[in-house]
Amino acid sequence: MGQRRFMRVFDGEALVPPPIWLMRQAGRYLPEYRATRAKAGGFLDLCYSPAMAAEVTLQPIRRYGFDAAILFSDILVVPDALGQPVRFAEGEGPRLEPIQSSEGFARLSIRDAMGKFGIVAETVQRLRQDLPKETALIGFCGAPWTVATYMIAGQGSSDQAAARLFAYRDPEGFRRLTDILVEASVAYLDLQVKAGADVVQIFDSWSGTLPDGEFEAWVTAPTRRLVADLRKLHPGLKVIGFPRGAGSRTFTYVRETGVDAVGCDTAMPIGEIKASLSGKTVVQGNLDPLLLVSGGRALDQRVDELLAALSPNPYIFNLGHGIVPQTPPENVGRLVERVRNFGR
Amino acid sequence: MGQRRFMRVFDGEALVPPPIWLMRQAGRYLPEYRATRAKAGGFLDLCYSPAMAAEVTLQPIRRYGFDAAILFSDILVVPDALGQPVRFAEGEGPRLEPIQSSEGFARLSIRDAMGKFGIVAETVQRLRQDLPKETALIGFCGAPWTVATYMIAGQGSSDQAAARLFAYRDPEGFRRLTDILVEASVAYLDLQVKAGADVVQIFDSWSGTLPDGEFEAWVTAPTRRLVADLRKLHPGLKVIGFPRGAGSRTFTYVRETGVDAVGCDTAMPIGEIKASLSGKTVVQGNLDPLLLVSGGRALDQRVDELLAALSPNPYIFNLGHGIVPQTPPENVGRLVERVRNFGR
Repeated sequence: MGQRRFMRVFDGEALVPPPIWLMRQAGRYLPEYRATRAKAGGFLDLCYSPAMAAEVTLQPIRRYGFDAAILFSDILVVPDALGQPVRFAEGEGPRLEPIQSSEGFARLSIRDAMGKFGIVAETVQRLRQDLPKETALIGFCGAPWTVATYMIAGQGSSDQAAARLFAYRDPEGFRRLTDILVEASVAYLDLQVKAGADVVQIFDSWSGTLPDGEFEAWVTAPTRRLVADLRKLHPGLKVIGFPRGAGSRTFTYVRETGVDAVGCDTAMPIGEIKASLSGKTVVQGNLDPLLLVSGGRALDQRVDELLAALSPNPYIFNLGHGIVPQTPPENVGRLVERVRNFGR
Repeated sequence: MGQRRFMRVFDGEALVPPPIWLMRQAGRYLPEYRATRAKAGGFLDLCYSPAMAAEVTLQPIRRYGFDAAILFSDILVVPDALGQPVRFAEGEGPRLEPIQSSEGFARLSIRDAMGKFGIVAETVQRLRQDLPKETALIGFCGAPWTVATYMIAGQGSSDQAAARLFAYRDPEGFRRLTDILVEASVAYLDLQVKAGADVVQIFDSWSGTLPDGEFEAWVTAPTRRLVADLRKLHPGLKVIGFPRGAGSRTFTYVRETGVDAVGCDTAMPIGEIKASLSGKTVVQGNLDPLLLVSGGRALDQRVDELLAALSPNPYIFNLGHGIVPQTPPENVGRLVERVRNFGR
């Protein structure tokens, strides 16, 4: 078969209409997801069941025909597989036993992690068989910095104070942790690509709070190593980076890490994306997911604005953050239809 | 007496060493604060006790001799005074009964608010008497957007989803809320200035997540009205804006709102501050408060970097976010000494 349409943006094509997928397109806003989720035990049981994880990945493709599916999984599979167990309490976020000092790294083992990574790779294999031939498949992992913030705090936090403080107090120790995470992420993504992922995305959801030097040390540098090491195994592999909150540092991030495309978060001004990123890299984003909740004309207008500003260059339509659970599924349909009708 | 040294930066003077104060300089990291706090009932009781609020405001001035004191209070005094009671549960953040729709605005009354505003003004009056003559006094309020996020969600949130969604669904209603908050904030700051505040700061702690149009509508526009209306009452009044997370939008914010100085958060790259803000407005910031926790050479180096980059133009040394409770007080002393020795 020929190349999947989605992938053509990475060769520098400005597609009209642009390809579209949405972060968290598989998720709680869909009744069919909630039905499958109810059959799984814990949230990670769902991630570790290739049959169920593949099923929820496919659900939004069946409903909306997105140009790309993204493997259903969680960025915390990596610490969980490495030996720092993760649990998801109902209605709360993830909980881990926090790592307080570099002694806590001793329990982390990449060799042990391969078992759970293999289960996720099996999901990817199934997906490659079950997905429509024209649908691209996106593998993913969390970026070292973002994953480390959970490992050190033991949970999510809006300011990442625990990890930032750890890194100030013990930069050498923190660097060792990012080294472990780079190596584990490369092994994890390697399996995903071998199993059939067309492209991978690196989620750095908590990169925005870091000052200059720390952004370079803990976001840019580990991501650069991750991308380079992965490309040694898979030359020419396409990589999407998503340094959420990076703002004006996004352009430097793209140049320094070598990613092929960059996710822009909701707060990135469209004018700035157009001026500093469009045409220089593949742009992905950045509709506010809350507009998908409210819907209506405000949604349509913003979609049109994004399409007009960004589609003249290689562009992947997406949100600036994940779909939220209270999103009416019909608003997602309205969005997809509007994007698909663009330029007709 | 002559003009306080702190105020000279607003006339365009680049002072060596630059004046220094720190956000949350009065707070839990100080044992004397914890002692006073233990005598108050709830947290808001402390804010509404002129004697105790003045005492905790003075504590860091006695210890460190900062160039400016900031009134000890809370941005949620405004909704509390307006008729939406705020309570602070121990170890948690603030809690309010959330406003679900614009019908909820009916209970808000600026006339009723004047009683509690007057109590805070009494604190300012005491401070003006008790502060050293050379110490400037900063009054403050929360910006309409940031205060509204708490009023609508009923608590703090890292993504401000409730307020953003309210504003998408009912922009007219949301505008009415910001109008009420602009009017209330003007009345509140007017009392503070009459009571002796030399300058006021507007805290927009949650401005960073808003997309383009919303940033203009809910951050820039209400702040511009607030500043303009306040200057009708107090021509020439100096105003510091702190649009946290505004990133590259900070320059536009300064130009459009008419503030005289701008607080830069921890994530703003020093190079960008220097290139786009220094010399065009008074810059305030942006040391990472976590460096005050870790201390040592990393702290010294960053302080020196900030001083070298920003002090050639009108500059107020400060943090990029508030002091955190686990800060060793001696690190604050170390910082103040280092800044004071700059240029000697």
